Amino acid sequence: MIRKANEMRVDTKNDWLGGKGDVGLVHIMEREEFLGKGRLFALNILKPGSSIGMHTHKGEMEAYYVVKGEGLFEEKGEKKPIKAGDLGYIGVGQSHAIENTGNTDLEFIALILFE
Amino acid sequence: MIRKANEMRVDTKNDWLGGKGDVGLVHIMEREEFLGKGRLFALNILKPGSSIGMHTHKGEMEAYYVVKGEGLFEEKGEKKPIKAGDLGYIGVGQSHAIENTGNTDLEFIALILFE
Repeated sequence: MIRKANEMRVDTKNDWLGGKGDVGLVHIMEREEFLGKGRLFALNILKPGSSIGMHTHKGEMEAYYVVKGEGLFEEKGEKKPIKAGDLGYIGVGQSHAIENTGNTDLEFIALILFE
Repeated sequence: MIRKANEMRVDTKNDWLGGKGDVGLVHIMEREEFLGKGRLFALNILKPGSSIGMHTHKGEMEAYYVVKGEGLFEEKGEKKPIKAGDLGYIGVGQSHAIENTGNTDLEFIALILFE
């Protein structure tokens, strides 16, 4: 099955989880397509200055794979530079945040799998 | 945890699964990071004219999310155009192939989750 880009479900989150600005979410896969193993495989788009606030993943992991731009990935009290080609990974029960500190959109693919 | 692009494990497959040319595979996540729910989350890079041959996924699904370029995604005897932003999805037990028919590299992220 092919799902064209313009057929994907899109969400916009404002000041998400205590972050700033807007986050666009393009849902690449829908819930039933995960075979019960996860719940998110989505392109996240953050304009310059936008962020997703610190939040915790109980009973699941999350991976952020950056495809465009650059920013800061925060975990365990530390903000670390991240850019296109890099992965930010947190395990079950861990917390993270991300901020676009560049001059172009920050785009990353988020994957959530259950414990 | 951050894994920088240059720290990721890279494979090169030649004439893979009956396809043509070389396929570069950049492993974004390692096996233990899937929490037992899957086995592949990797950037696939196909030069113009390269392909991955027709193959079947027993006991698992696979998603190809295209990030750059264009090509043909084959399933159920039909070749369908696919390009940056599109998803090619096959369910458990289904078969697929993909070919770079463009003039630039075709890059897609492959995700495999178990049944």
